[in-house]
Amino acid sequence: MTNYHLTPSQFREEGKKIIDWIADYYEKIESYPVLSQVKPGEIKAGLPENPPQKGEPFEHIIRDLDEKIMPGITHWQSPNFYAYFPSNTSFPSILGDLVSSGLGVQGMIWATSPAATELETRVLDWLAEMMDMPEKFRSTSTGGGVIQDTASTSALTAVIAARERATKFRSNKTGVREMLVAYVSSQTHSSLEKAIKMAGIGSENLRLVEVDEQFSMRPDLLHELIREDKKKGFHPFFVCATIGTTSSNAIDPVRKIGEICKEENCWLHVDAAMSGTAMLCPEFRYLKDGVELADSYSFNPHKWMFVNFDCNVFWVANREELISTFSILPEYLRNKATESGEVFDYRDWHVQLGRRFRSLKLWFVIRHYGVEGLQFHIRKHVEIAQNFTRWVKDSNEFEMVVEPALNLVCFRHKAGDDFNMALMNAVNETGKAFFTHTKLNGQVVLRMSIGQTYTEEEHVKQTWNLIQKTAGRMTQG
Amino acid sequence: MTNYHLTPSQFREEGKKIIDWIADYYEKIESYPVLSQVKPGEIKAGLPENPPQKGEPFEHIIRDLDEKIMPGITHWQSPNFYAYFPSNTSFPSILGDLVSSGLGVQGMIWATSPAATELETRVLDWLAEMMDMPEKFRSTSTGGGVIQDTASTSALTAVIAARERATKFRSNKTGVREMLVAYVSSQTHSSLEKAIKMAGIGSENLRLVEVDEQFSMRPDLLHELIREDKKKGFHPFFVCATIGTTSSNAIDPVRKIGEICKEENCWLHVDAAMSGTAMLCPEFRYLKDGVELADSYSFNPHKWMFVNFDCNVFWVANREELISTFSILPEYLRNKATESGEVFDYRDWHVQLGRRFRSLKLWFVIRHYGVEGLQFHIRKHVEIAQNFTRWVKDSNEFEMVVEPALNLVCFRHKAGDDFNMALMNAVNETGKAFFTHTKLNGQVVLRMSIGQTYTEEEHVKQTWNLIQKTAGRMTQG
Ligand SMILES: Cc1ncc(COP(=O)(O)O)c(C=O)c1O
Ligand SMILES: Cc1ncc(COP(=O)(O)O)c(C=O)c1O
Repeated sequence: MTNYHLTPSQFREEGKKIIDWIADYYEKIESYPVLSQVKPGEIKAGLPENPPQKGEPFEHIIRDLDEKIMPGITHWQSPNFYAYFPSNTSFPSILGDLVSSGLGVQGMIWATSPAATELETRVLDWLAEMMDMPEKFRSTSTGGGVIQDTASTSALTAVIAARERATKFRSNKTGVREMLVAYVSSQTHSSLEKAIKMAGIGSENLRLVEVDEQFSMRPDLLHELIREDKKKGFHPFFVCATIGTTSSNAIDPVRKIGEICKEENCWLHVDAAMSGTAMLCPEFRYLKDGVELADSYSFNPHKWMFVNFDCNVFWVANREELISTFSILPEYLRNKATESGEVFDYRDWHVQLGRRFRSLKLWFVIRHYGVEGLQFHIRKHVEIAQNFTRWVKDSNEFEMVVEPALNLVCFRHKAGDDFNMALMNAVNETGKAFFTHTKLNGQVVLRMSIGQTYTEEEHVKQTWNLIQKTAGRMTQG
Repeated sequence: MTNYHLTPSQFREEGKKIIDWIADYYEKIESYPVLSQVKPGEIKAGLPENPPQKGEPFEHIIRDLDEKIMPGITHWQSPNFYAYFPSNTSFPSILGDLVSSGLGVQGMIWATSPAATELETRVLDWLAEMMDMPEKFRSTSTGGGVIQDTASTSALTAVIAARERATKFRSNKTGVREMLVAYVSSQTHSSLEKAIKMAGIGSENLRLVEVDEQFSMRPDLLHELIREDKKKGFHPFFVCATIGTTSSNAIDPVRKIGEICKEENCWLHVDAAMSGTAMLCPEFRYLKDGVELADSYSFNPHKWMFVNFDCNVFWVANREELISTFSILPEYLRNKATESGEVFDYRDWHVQLGRRFRSLKLWFVIRHYGVEGLQFHIRKHVEIAQNFTRWVKDSNEFEMVVEPALNLVCFRHKAGDDFNMALMNAVNETGKAFFTHTKLNGQVVLRMSIGQTYTEEEHVKQTWNLIQKTAGRMTQG
């Protein structure tokens, strides 16, 4: 009689095949077109319209994975993926997450798996040390860290905690009744606007502060706006400074912004989604100067730190504010440990209740690479970006748009917006590389984001040659 | 020269060891104490205070996993785990999620991996068919499904979309300016209150409707409250009905509540977090009678459908309302497919921007088990719960609190609250089983939640014997 389960011994067999499947994938990853070439609806059309009534052999699932799913994959892990921002991973991370899936614990509170909570606390204290973050972000001080799914959710968490503090912890009860106003730069990631909307503040109450020629927020204009708003009877409550904006990797002046926040009593959230990882290297830490003035700070190991999606780190300076904002204790979750006050119940630190064992993959990565191994890769990516910058500067047809702070190169062909878009599409359609664009000062800008796990200088060099050749053909044609 | 990475061939080796480690774990899972016996701080104290400067061999990580982490695990996957609610998994799910980690794609929009979007759409349409959900929840009609992380996030998503619709899509712009009021029952999960707070509505504007003796929401009282609120100038906008409350698995009368929502122009969200899975079986579908009146519906395959955490299914009747609420299109994400309107960009369906390839594990589970295999297990769990109920009824010392609708048995010893709490703690401390309590009508109630993957009748029988024996010893002592 069947009970439909895979037995442990079948799991050993199928699981090892999947491990080989993944290893094979990485061995041949460069043979795939980086950007999937399928048309809308094509993948769905290849999948049966109706669900299977009876279970199917595992090999059929894998066959369909190869034949029906793989053509619709855009290969983020390809060394020739330079689009958007990195979302890199590594074998240790994949295995750490596999252990998490295997254990299948749900760590919503300490009691439901103490190790899930305590490893997370420990590893985030490690990370704070690895990045020389301020004492107050550590669990041993007034603050602490929690793993969130994404920077977007962290932004929402920060906005809501700030909203609560600004309203003397009334907004959770009464709703948003005050004229709260928040400040970001014109370059801040869209997740902040989304958070302001979701939290019931309203996008009309979000001010976009103008930036300087490096696309960094102008603190003088921030201060002016705050003062004007106060005069008009608004209540400024929240500022987001970005270390490494999405478009051009601009660095907001955190210290100056932080001083204004202290003076004006605003919550300072720092979004270092991608570039935060660079703080592993002492030589890049000047970019976070002033971070001890922040109330919260978020960065994504799932972007540039070899930890697979999702994994966002969110630190707060004062955990009590966070916990009073998000905690709820229904009877069915009451337990001795929670009542003792000696433990963290992480569901009180964020939006969700349930949570998997989130820290395992981060722990695997830190232990496997060590601080040294992580620094090695970050430095390599930055160096490649510097070399790419040199090549652009050495060419006659292309120009740099801004000096790269780290691993993102913003450049353009001199022949104008339409040409740049056509050039980008032409290169992407070859399948040999994938990069994307943005707009800065109203102009199309091409972006080479260098941060995938297996990207070496030779890949970037080849892509640069391809870009040049394609542009050459287009200008001739 | 090292580049610190595991090579693909090292990954093959270490990966296969982890697969064996997981298989071994399931083979010996019954030898662990179900509820971790560690004290607060014990696990953390076993982990080094400082991060490793140099990377460490993989076997050291696994050794520490065994020695330092495992004692702090509460074994959710044990067949003797009856606490809270199930959060089960299965080998096919673990492998589906492994493929997702291996591919490492970030499917925030269609273009960033078309297969990630289109498989999700297809599989959620399958599920709608498998559960005989209304036509309007399907992508081929006006609605569609999206995989969220948790039921909590789905609740927040529903509240915000409802808030937008009720304010004629102004609240995202202006903030919450109207006197919006929401309704849940006194038994509704705390995530709804949390959502109402986060969305800027305020818990003062959340009404708790009283329940009947089955702990189901009383629609007559709901209607009364709505009418009173309207008279007072409030704007009722949102109702949550639960199919299977957390405490006692009560079923709210969805049809009656839905009719009131239509009449009073409220958004109806249905939270079927655990019990939603039962809709795979035709004989349990009467529990969702009236669901075609809902605007949104959420359930957790990560609870009772053998899909590992996290995986929540969120269906809406009108996807346009959802998308107008959550969409944001920064320049750097503009692309032809999005502009064509032919594709779904799932980041517009929820809070987060980034998302992993969420549907793979769900696809693996459905294909491996087929509808038939899933039905088999759901029916078995319900049958075990019925047998447990019979045993309780046959005993002199224990009594049932409510008739179980599905797989959750609420019972108590007749000797009073303190005795029940002491009994529960005594059994849990043996490590042989883990179950939890709640309060109903102010009284302590013990809960046997039967839904873990490997729970068979013999496990539950043994636990029942243990409970009886322990109680016997306690009454003698
Ligand atoms: C009825 C109900 N709704 C919502 C939830 C929240 O689930 P999640 O952890 O997925 O947010 C639960 C259980 O946790 C539940 O039982
Ligand atoms: C600066 C910045 N902040 C936030 C985000 C959002 O990241 P996530 O997908 O983790 O929400 C991104 C990129 O997506 C980003 O570049």
